[in-house]
Amino acid sequence: MDFNIQYRDTGSNARAGVLQTAHSEVRTPVFMPVGTAGSVKGIHQRELVHDIDAPLILGNTYHLYLRPGMEVIGGAGGIHRFMNWERSILTDSGGYQVFSLAANRRLKKEGAWFSSHIDGSRHLFTPENIVDIQRIIGADIIMAFDECTPWPCDREYAVRSMQLTHHWLDRGKEQFASTMPLYGYEQSFFPIVQGSVYPDLRRRSAEYIAAKEADGNAIGGLSVGEPAEEMYAMIDVVNGILPEARPRYLMGVGTPVNILEAIAMGIDMFDCVMPTRNGRNGMLFTAEGIINIKNRRWMDDYTPVDPAGYCFADTQYSKAYLRHLIISGEMLGAQIASLHNLAFYLWLVRKAFDEIKRGTFAAWKEKMIPGLNTRL
Amino acid sequence: MDFNIQYRDTGSNARAGVLQTAHSEVRTPVFMPVGTAGSVKGIHQRELVHDIDAPLILGNTYHLYLRPGMEVIGGAGGIHRFMNWERSILTDSGGYQVFSLAANRRLKKEGAWFSSHIDGSRHLFTPENIVDIQRIIGADIIMAFDECTPWPCDREYAVRSMQLTHHWLDRGKEQFASTMPLYGYEQSFFPIVQGSVYPDLRRRSAEYIAAKEADGNAIGGLSVGEPAEEMYAMIDVVNGILPEARPRYLMGVGTPVNILEAIAMGIDMFDCVMPTRNGRNGMLFTAEGIINIKNRRWMDDYTPVDPAGYCFADTQYSKAYLRHLIISGEMLGAQIASLHNLAFYLWLVRKAFDEIKRGTFAAWKEKMIPGLNTRL
Repeated sequence: MDFNIQYRDTGSNARAGVLQTAHSEVRTPVFMPVGTAGSVKGIHQRELVHDIDAPLILGNTYHLYLRPGMEVIGGAGGIHRFMNWERSILTDSGGYQVFSLAANRRLKKEGAWFSSHIDGSRHLFTPENIVDIQRIIGADIIMAFDECTPWPCDREYAVRSMQLTHHWLDRGKEQFASTMPLYGYEQSFFPIVQGSVYPDLRRRSAEYIAAKEADGNAIGGLSVGEPAEEMYAMIDVVNGILPEARPRYLMGVGTPVNILEAIAMGIDMFDCVMPTRNGRNGMLFTAEGIINIKNRRWMDDYTPVDPAGYCFADTQYSKAYLRHLIISGEMLGAQIASLHNLAFYLWLVRKAFDEIKRGTFAAWKEKMIPGLNTRL
Repeated sequence: MDFNIQYRDTGSNARAGVLQTAHSEVRTPVFMPVGTAGSVKGIHQRELVHDIDAPLILGNTYHLYLRPGMEVIGGAGGIHRFMNWERSILTDSGGYQVFSLAANRRLKKEGAWFSSHIDGSRHLFTPENIVDIQRIIGADIIMAFDECTPWPCDREYAVRSMQLTHHWLDRGKEQFASTMPLYGYEQSFFPIVQGSVYPDLRRRSAEYIAAKEADGNAIGGLSVGEPAEEMYAMIDVVNGILPEARPRYLMGVGTPVNILEAIAMGIDMFDCVMPTRNGRNGMLFTAEGIINIKNRRWMDDYTPVDPAGYCFADTQYSKAYLRHLIISGEMLGAQIASLHNLAFYLWLVRKAFDEIKRGTFAAWKEKMIPGLNTRL
């Protein structure tokens, strides 16, 4: 995996670059639509390419492992072929879902035992088999197995959890180094910084992770309920330590404002379920502000979903029509809102690239934020 | 509305023609995808045009009247503008939904009182206001208000119900004649033949309806549970009486086999929720047979959804992938299955047109039926 920083903003730590995987050229900063179980909910693959133009999407190892399972994905020759997606895929490590979805978790040094949320069957994730699973999935970017601490999290727990994540990282790295890709293309392995909201723990974790000299590095355990200011403070601490020349991935973040602020601090990669999950519930992100399309004020507003027109759905449907669909529980409502939000998120990071290139990112961000924070 | 029969099959009563509405040229036989509440579930309007190529869709008056309501649709300038659909729309009369969905029905000569299935609010449909509502919706083809009898239905009830439907028809026709379209384009009014499964009642009803000399005529109250042979027998009786030169619409039918058999008897128009509703549940209609994609045998079948390729979804996704999506409850599964089924249904009626043109329809139908009846 190749990563080249092409431009640096003059008024912030933002950088614009190109990440080259075996499958696609990914301009950074980049936002990854979340394709939980091998599908970005409500969106056809051709829409991801032609209407949203996402160069890289995320899959959830936990979900894919449980269903359809490794036999089916392996039999297809990996996730790209299984879902017919020719661009890049990153898979998370499953850790987050084990702690948020699965039942009867038992965390041990060896790994994490859990019961499937689907059928209650018992499984063990270890740092080693999580690498093996992601080899079978065939993701371009593989994440190390980690424990994502909740918020709030007492210091003692945060220390022990971080040490466990570091121990797991060493074993995962070893497994990654001693195994080969299954489908003839290169895969990369990203470790994850933890440490909750304790600056000294974040510093220790970032130093531990930086020393691994991985292809890229991730920051986990943020955007789990803590105030945004604490999240920004942790990013700042960690970015001062993670290698400059490698991509930095802020996991599970966030709102358009969170993304712009994190880009300004030198983050390159993002993923979040907000544009699709909140979209399905009628929340639209726009440059002018956040729309709750269920509100009565949109009932007879026949103007386009978003006149800015980030994708076909923005201009082919009206707000009144979209409101009707969402209120009626029509699938098409969720489809339109998801398309709009993802197209907007991808526009936002492409625009950030251009502004960084021009050296005007910091000023542009300040101009954007009041609009993005508005409730329409 | 113009209707011209261009070709007649040599071995059956099938006919192929063109129905010209204010919005589009509709080749018949035609199948109308069902767009219940102003949306064909899971399908974008551009997909209806480019991938399914449906010239005419159906909307449900009952649903549209209750939600979003006449104020919103009227404010948009009619349903075409509201949902951004430039081709033709037919709306049913609401009668079927009043009897299948609504609660606390009270049927009177005046009309049908019912409680909304959404919020329990009390409403009255009359033959007159059903015309007014469809004027506001702006459908190209308006259906008369009728009572759709259930099956089985005793003869006495069937007689009274038919008489009520005829009485309502006269009042609806009068209302239609004394009102004008609201949006500057022509609308047509179709009466509906009832009479349950009693040949003499069907004959009387067809004679009553034929005498109205409407732009087109519909056959209702079939495909409600009766054996297919009884349905075919009723169609045969009615088609012998309904005017040759006007389109005949068989409401709510049916399977691909039902459609081919009815075309052979001289039916021109169809609608049914099967391709979308059954599709969402994992049933795929193909020329080789019916697939229940949930079956284990498709688990690792990586061949295309349908190699015949009626639309992009057939060839871009595999059976194994579609099975995974449907079993996982992913929206995309319902979208793919609906796209496939609708594209197949529309292919089927276009192919029927071509076979009628060549005078080979009857032979082609016999060749198709064993495949269509197969369970794969």
